[in-house]
Amino acid sequence: MTTTDMQATPDYAAILETICAEVQPLLSQGKVASYIPQLSRVSGYHFGMAVYCLDGQTFAIGDAHQKFSLQSVTKLFALALAFSREGDSIWHRVGREPSGNPFNSLVQLEYEKGKPRNPFINAGALVMTDILSSRFVQSDIAVLQFARLIADENCIDFDLAVAQSERETAHRNYAIAHLMKDFGNLHNPVKTVIDSYCRQCSITMTCAELAKAGGFLAQHGTIPWSGAQILDASSAKRLNALMLTCGTYDAAGDFAYRVGLPAKSGVGGGILALVPGELAVAVWSPGLDHTGNSLAGTYALERFTTLTSRSIF
Amino acid sequence: MTTTDMQATPDYAAILETICAEVQPLLSQGKVASYIPQLSRVSGYHFGMAVYCLDGQTFAIGDAHQKFSLQSVTKLFALALAFSREGDSIWHRVGREPSGNPFNSLVQLEYEKGKPRNPFINAGALVMTDILSSRFVQSDIAVLQFARLIADENCIDFDLAVAQSERETAHRNYAIAHLMKDFGNLHNPVKTVIDSYCRQCSITMTCAELAKAGGFLAQHGTIPWSGAQILDASSAKRLNALMLTCGTYDAAGDFAYRVGLPAKSGVGGGILALVPGELAVAVWSPGLDHTGNSLAGTYALERFTTLTSRSIF
Amino acid sequence: MTTTDMQATPDYAAILETICAEVQPLLSQGKVASYIPQLSRVSGYHFGMAVYCLDGQTFAIGDAHQKFSLQSVTKLFALALAFSREGDSIWHRVGREPSGNPFNSLVQLEYEKGKPRNPFINAGALVMTDILSSRFVQSDIAVLQFARLIADENCIDFDLAVAQSERETAHRNYAIAHLMKDFGNLHNPVKTVIDSYCRQCSITMTCAELAKAGGFLAQHGTIPWSGAQILDASSAKRLNALMLTCGTYDAAGDFAYRVGLPAKSGVGGGILALVPGELAVAVWSPGLDHTGNSLAGTYALERFTTLTSRSIF
Amino acid sequence: MTTTDMQATPDYAAILETICAEVQPLLSQGKVASYIPQLSRVSGYHFGMAVYCLDGQTFAIGDAHQKFSLQSVTKLFALALAFSREGDSIWHRVGREPSGNPFNSLVQLEYEKGKPRNPFINAGALVMTDILSSRFVQSDIAVLQFARLIADENCIDFDLAVAQSERETAHRNYAIAHLMKDFGNLHNPVKTVIDSYCRQCSITMTCAELAKAGGFLAQHGTIPWSGAQILDASSAKRLNALMLTCGTYDAAGDFAYRVGLPAKSGVGGGILALVPGELAVAVWSPGLDHTGNSLAGTYALERFTTLTSRSIF
Repeated sequence: MTTTDMQATPDYAAILETICAEVQPLLSQGKVASYIPQLSRVSGYHFGMAVYCLDGQTFAIGDAHQKFSLQSVTKLFALALAFSREGDSIWHRVGREPSGNPFNSLVQLEYEKGKPRNPFINAGALVMTDILSSRFVQSDIAVLQFARLIADENCIDFDLAVAQSERETAHRNYAIAHLMKDFGNLHNPVKTVIDSYCRQCSITMTCAELAKAGGFLAQHGTIPWSGAQILDASSAKRLNALMLTCGTYDAAGDFAYRVGLPAKSGVGGGILALVPGELAVAVWSPGLDHTGNSLAGTYALERFTTLTSRSIF
Repeated sequence: MTTTDMQATPDYAAILETICAEVQPLLSQGKVASYIPQLSRVSGYHFGMAVYCLDGQTFAIGDAHQKFSLQSVTKLFALALAFSREGDSIWHRVGREPSGNPFNSLVQLEYEKGKPRNPFINAGALVMTDILSSRFVQSDIAVLQFARLIADENCIDFDLAVAQSERETAHRNYAIAHLMKDFGNLHNPVKTVIDSYCRQCSITMTCAELAKAGGFLAQHGTIPWSGAQILDASSAKRLNALMLTCGTYDAAGDFAYRVGLPAKSGVGGGILALVPGELAVAVWSPGLDHTGNSLAGTYALERFTTLTSRSIF
Repeated sequence: MTTTDMQATPDYAAILETICAEVQPLLSQGKVASYIPQLSRVSGYHFGMAVYCLDGQTFAIGDAHQKFSLQSVTKLFALALAFSREGDSIWHRVGREPSGNPFNSLVQLEYEKGKPRNPFINAGALVMTDILSSRFVQSDIAVLQFARLIADENCIDFDLAVAQSERETAHRNYAIAHLMKDFGNLHNPVKTVIDSYCRQCSITMTCAELAKAGGFLAQHGTIPWSGAQILDASSAKRLNALMLTCGTYDAAGDFAYRVGLPAKSGVGGGILALVPGELAVAVWSPGLDHTGNSLAGTYALERFTTLTSRSIF
Repeated sequence: MTTTDMQATPDYAAILETICAEVQPLLSQGKVASYIPQLSRVSGYHFGMAVYCLDGQTFAIGDAHQKFSLQSVTKLFALALAFSREGDSIWHRVGREPSGNPFNSLVQLEYEKGKPRNPFINAGALVMTDILSSRFVQSDIAVLQFARLIADENCIDFDLAVAQSERETAHRNYAIAHLMKDFGNLHNPVKTVIDSYCRQCSITMTCAELAKAGGFLAQHGTIPWSGAQILDASSAKRLNALMLTCGTYDAAGDFAYRVGLPAKSGVGGGILALVPGELAVAVWSPGLDHTGNSLAGTYALERFTTLTSRSIF
């Protein structure tokens, strides 16, 4: 990134303002997730964005300080926690390849005998929950504490109404879990895993908190403000690689093409993206595109990499 | 890549020597591609590697000056050429997502009505050939001339015996092409497209030539020694993103995880990888792993990123 | 069947003796179902066969009076009961086509949005249970009473140890049921449906009882000894057609080719087959072939149609 | 079929008149096949039907003496011819199971490594043509001569304009043939097989001729008027079983349910059905339903079995 590094540091505050203005017409075009009743009540007109630079500077705009439901973004935390404790042994039970299929499909899972393609599709995330359930008293509490640690914020919590709402409509996740149980790739009871998973997904954060929580991945595994090592540098890079190839459902290729950053999205409309060695950026807008990623959020990140000339490529 | 850039330039010569020594025991473990009779005659014990730095320095080791069959590596040239001429219109006919399926599968192609997932699986590469066949008198000659241009080497040529050998056993590619024809996503005659494609795939280069040919992609679309712009910076970054997510068949996720660089592989045993803004590196070893990528070559690149501390993540 | 009808009535007693002798070497070749622990304890060396002629004559040989677990054979009873009560409305929720896939696959079910191909694969049978659960206090009791009625035998009952054993290992059926629930094609709670289904499948009968239970389908919907009409003639013929095209899992084509009679098999090793207008024949041998049908049982029926010159074709 | 045989012979002439009147409103509802240009020019308002009784009586109505393109109905002739010459060895190269997929799908063929599910889907029919091409100088001529023999009519011939039209648009069949060639399940050149297959499919007959041609299958393998044995009784029954389970594309289950007779349909709008031991019946109406079977033709056969009380079930 010779070119990049010779440039002066971008004016992030101005860039966020530009982006926030540009995305306004898009806010009406996305579709708020409807399959979890509690989520469907959120207005699609929210937009927030926050940048956490590794030197400690932070920038925020719009609804960047409003809590939203992280949903699949928490899969990243669960993976980081499981990977930090279990190391490469997790790859016996989940793959590292893009799935080429919707995030909740059972087709590939059946063909591949219960081994999920990667930890970011639902099946793979349930395996992570299962792994954590075998190690911790309660997997969801472990993920919550991990989230508080990496975001440096103890008030982060579950939204139990959302968790309950999701659990009641989690038929497809139950189907996935039972299918893996049938193949021997789920060690704890299905109900335990689904309950933990639904609570984990219900964690809420603000964009500002989420960007800060991404700091350790931008800084090669080490928490910027404390120097505590969560993952060694090599492992952190590998998680970033997984985010790039698998982090945005079956739109990962298109997302890499347009945005060019490792990222993890959720159906709550949040996306966390990383410029390794420099910063983490979080965006939130509840309206989703047809691939399940935040429509305005993806556009905002595309503009962010263009306006800052940041890209890993 | 703050950390990286603060480091002194790595001693590439020494690193290549280390890698070359380390891979020797692996050379017997891969399997030389057998489906094209001509290719199966190559010894699996070859190993070559070359680095082309954007400042013009080059480093080479082993069989780095021996010609080998590029095969699917040429898909990258065809894509770059088509993209440079046709721009984003090519995405109407081919996607940008990892396929999650073997490179020559027809299943997804049928479900998705003849639109290939990306330009690096065979179906997508045939569409590129078709696009080039509509624009140039002969698609394969156009790709050859493009290869000569970006490698700065006029002696680069087809291996017509390999092309002939491949054409005679190209039943699956014929099946793919006819299926796309049936869906209306192939405009030229099937035979024309297959013939051009087989000749294009037969282009031979050395590692040293291939590394140099990758220079324009490492330098954001501009040929380092001439300053000629093949692609604008944004387009070049996008090709790199595609290489990362789709460039190594259905092992792209694992390759990104292990190596962490955009790359394109071929069944001839060659791989071209890029450190954007810095260098291009080519490796060749004919023995393949079960995913069709060079076994020793992938390992060599993994060691290269570790020993040089280079990674886009 | 002009030719057939001009023949004298076959000597069924002699034919059963011949068959029983012929199958002995096959009894060691099948594999007793192992996925339900209770079933796996049955010896593979059992063989029983019984013929119920519509004139009331019955013939039996071997273990024809020993109880065995009907398993999927009960799907026929559940379908007949649901069809007799709900008529053609059941076809809104389940198809009438062979699936071309294993009986417990989820792939097709996902592609076809939760509508099972036919009532004899597990998914379709669960929909039948769901339909009966909406109509009767307890679906499994309703099927049991129906079985007692058509077999004219009140001692027929569940084997609750088998039901319990199956319920504990029913992960795949849970997966199927939850997937259909997700698609809105299951109206009762998943647990209710699975529990009823497992009990229904655990019904035990002897070959003699099962042959008699098939009498009403051989006699175009009317119970031979009472004249009570269960189904009108047209509906009975239609059930027979379904048995022929879908009754023996994904071996229905081969079974029709070899045996040429409508039939329904179960993993307990039982098969019920019909010669419409003439007789019902039941066979039991626990060793299964690779398609999940009784190996010796299928052969016995093939010999039966050859030796009696009976076939619907 | 005790009940049936006790009935007097139905008044076929009156029944055909009834049916012909009933189907008139349906003639506008089907869709004439459009993928072969020559076929798309036929008016959808044709309707013809003919019955050939094994005692030599024939009945005909409507356009029963007008020629139409047999298309897939010829697959039955090719199979009968190949089976009569090669016996059970043909089953090494093609299966006997319903496919559960559209007649021209490549998905299953790839999963099952080039072995088609049955001889009535396109892939299986191409294997039959390949088998016949290895045995006869010209496969299509052999099938034509066979058709003339079983219909007792030497004027039966190809419609070369249709054959030519089909060959020019046969991309999907080319795809299927090349895929099988890739798997080693096609021994002759792809072009030879496709050309022969297209000519075979172009054979034209009238309903009257087609019904007569079905006579040998209704009479258990023996030509009624000459006593010549084409197939032994067991083989003839087995072909009938295949017709029932696989003869009407992926609507075989529904067809068996509604009509209850072994049958083979074609996209030209023709269907041949059999009442074993009694008669063959042919119907023609070019408008197809969404499964590719004649809409009015299927309904006519459903009415035929109802009005004559004929059904194999």
